[in-house]
Amino acid sequence: MAKNLPQGTNKMPEVLGQALSGLPDRWKNWVIRGIFTMIMISGFCLIIYGGPLALMVTALAVQVKCFQEIISIGYSVYRIHGLPWFRSLSWYFLLTSNYFFYGENLVDYFGVAVSRVDSLRFLVKYHRFLSFCLYCIGFVWFVLSLVKKYYMKQFSLFAWTHVALLIVVTQSYLIIQNIFEGLIWFIVPVSMIVCNDVMAYMFGFFFGRTPLIQLSPKKTWEGFIGGGFATVIFGLLASYFLCQFQFFVCPIEYSETEGRMMIECEPSYLFRPQEYNIALFGASKTITMYPFLLHSLSMSIFSSVIGPFGGFFASGFKRAFKIKDFGDMIPGHGGIMDRFDCQFLMATFVNVYISSFIRYASPQKLLNMVYNLKPEEQLQLFNQLKDSLEERNIINLN
Amino acid sequence: MAKNLPQGTNKMPEVLGQALSGLPDRWKNWVIRGIFTMIMISGFCLIIYGGPLALMVTALAVQVKCFQEIISIGYSVYRIHGLPWFRSLSWYFLLTSNYFFYGENLVDYFGVAVSRVDSLRFLVKYHRFLSFCLYCIGFVWFVLSLVKKYYMKQFSLFAWTHVALLIVVTQSYLIIQNIFEGLIWFIVPVSMIVCNDVMAYMFGFFFGRTPLIQLSPKKTWEGFIGGGFATVIFGLLASYFLCQFQFFVCPIEYSETEGRMMIECEPSYLFRPQEYNIALFGASKTITMYPFLLHSLSMSIFSSVIGPFGGFFASGFKRAFKIKDFGDMIPGHGGIMDRFDCQFLMATFVNVYISSFIRYASPQKLLNMVYNLKPEEQLQLFNQLKDSLEERNIINLN
Repeated sequence: MAKNLPQGTNKMPEVLGQALSGLPDRWKNWVIRGIFTMIMISGFCLIIYGGPLALMVTALAVQVKCFQEIISIGYSVYRIHGLPWFRSLSWYFLLTSNYFFYGENLVDYFGVAVSRVDSLRFLVKYHRFLSFCLYCIGFVWFVLSLVKKYYMKQFSLFAWTHVALLIVVTQSYLIIQNIFEGLIWFIVPVSMIVCNDVMAYMFGFFFGRTPLIQLSPKKTWEGFIGGGFATVIFGLLASYFLCQFQFFVCPIEYSETEGRMMIECEPSYLFRPQEYNIALFGASKTITMYPFLLHSLSMSIFSSVIGPFGGFFASGFKRAFKIKDFGDMIPGHGGIMDRFDCQFLMATFVNVYISSFIRYASPQKLLNMVYNLKPEEQLQLFNQLKDSLEERNIINLN
Repeated sequence: MAKNLPQGTNKMPEVLGQALSGLPDRWKNWVIRGIFTMIMISGFCLIIYGGPLALMVTALAVQVKCFQEIISIGYSVYRIHGLPWFRSLSWYFLLTSNYFFYGENLVDYFGVAVSRVDSLRFLVKYHRFLSFCLYCIGFVWFVLSLVKKYYMKQFSLFAWTHVALLIVVTQSYLIIQNIFEGLIWFIVPVSMIVCNDVMAYMFGFFFGRTPLIQLSPKKTWEGFIGGGFATVIFGLLASYFLCQFQFFVCPIEYSETEGRMMIECEPSYLFRPQEYNIALFGASKTITMYPFLLHSLSMSIFSSVIGPFGGFFASGFKRAFKIKDFGDMIPGHGGIMDRFDCQFLMATFVNVYISSFIRYASPQKLLNMVYNLKPEEQLQLFNQLKDSLEERNIINLN
């Protein structure tokens, strides 16, 4: 089977190959990996500089490429020669689910603006219904495309496509949501994973002795622990630095008056220095720091303890289907999916973390929802709220 | 492979077997199927009589049984003898996702009540975070349980489990949501699918000539069309009947004062007769009917046009893995999954339909969200709402 599957090659630009021809293989790979890590990190910084829209477009592009890599493996595993419509169907499902998920985001943030244009209002109002219709078309199309003798392959690929969508599309939707909360919620976790990857590789390369897990023979305990510590320290430094700029800490909001996305706000208390009293051996000390640093700590611990399991999972998957890498886009690294395997789990963590610990229903958002009710319902709600507040002695109108 | 897979047998109670021994096989199956259809329909009515809680428990039981049937097939296909932990892992993921989805419902409806009990408050507040932690445990457990030589089987079953969860758990979550909107939104669609199944079978049995689709050789165009018409008529009659009872049309709300679920309301205009002017051939006529009947029409059209594709999909799946039925729980019918294959798609349709065309934010739900704010925020919201209402001359408190 292996020979049909796309194999990540250690292909490298020719110039580099010649320059490094004197080095032993182990070091050659080290240098190449290093160079392309630098290139990717610089690219990442450039995209951040480009602002939230550039980031979202990048997230979309990465998502599509990851999907393509996963699906290609499915094609090869099940040898789809002769399977009718299969490629079109996978891409159709990708489109549909992106329409649904990105739409849900846009409805939340730009709903009011889009509704202004009469011809687009139905897109907002019936977004779920339209998405569901699109999905149904794909579903019916799949059933009609079923061909005797291929049933099992077709169903397997159907499942394969859906699992890929579950991993890739839903997570990239969560990533976009994180970006809207403020760029810091995107940059810090992403760079933590990158830092953990790089530092675990470095510590492993120089000090690695004890194998960590059977799945990935190259991973060592030394790399795991060293990478973990490096990530925690890096996370605190990066957070401390980013906390000081509105551009990173403010949520992204669509300004109706300006007609564009804005990153401007009075930073929330998370990003303003606060005093903490710490009792240590009986002596009490006051330290001043950004509350966000504590959240940064939780994120870095997650990214260095649970994060690597995303990588192990991907390694296991590659072994299961006997491939070396998901692709060969990035010399020394493999495919896009090889670099983003841990990012997906992390994105979900950050999203859940924000919704559980950071974002509380804001009174303003609720009030907007109340104003969408009919006047008599607003009145009814008002009276009930008044009674309840009086009962609890929070107000006294008489 | 086929002999390892669970085969739906045409097992039947012995008494019945003897009584029907004179009939040809075709009719024997007809009678048995008929008897067990009656039994199931009566059971369904009994459960409805038992009220919303009984319905929810039933939905949960059906979900678990369906999951078990799908997973068992996976076990047999991939012959899991010796695969470590696999059964426990699938059930663990079922538990986790149920905890997440049912919790999301409960938080919406009973959040305020649960928050009263101090020791349970964190369950509401950190629901998503707790669910995600549970999922991460399962994920890490899976990675650690990976064993050389079994990688491919383990990953395939992992995907299999997740697709089963996607089909079974998420949909049963949508069903519970539909029940909360009012029993009619559950009973009408479910019985439409049943009616369509039964009538398509009957029309096919008596008049079937023209094969409909290669996948299910027993299905005919006569059954498809006859079943469709019967479903539309049945749907209108059933809706007309149910519209008259508060028990069926009122949303289910948790009453704090009573401490239990209540089905009492002023029926919304959907369930009160309205006058419609219809212009037909120049002559205009006024007819009076429940607006819900129009929605019933959309649902019956969906259930008779797209609904059967759920069944075709299941047939294809059974053929792909060379099994006759998903199980053998119901004589003449097969497994639970054989009877519920079309219900899942329908549940999603109804849910999306309600959220797109029916449900507008209800004052009660918003009020619950307001009560979850801090007291001072409640006060702030109250004052802003008061100012706005006064400004618009809706109230005058002075």
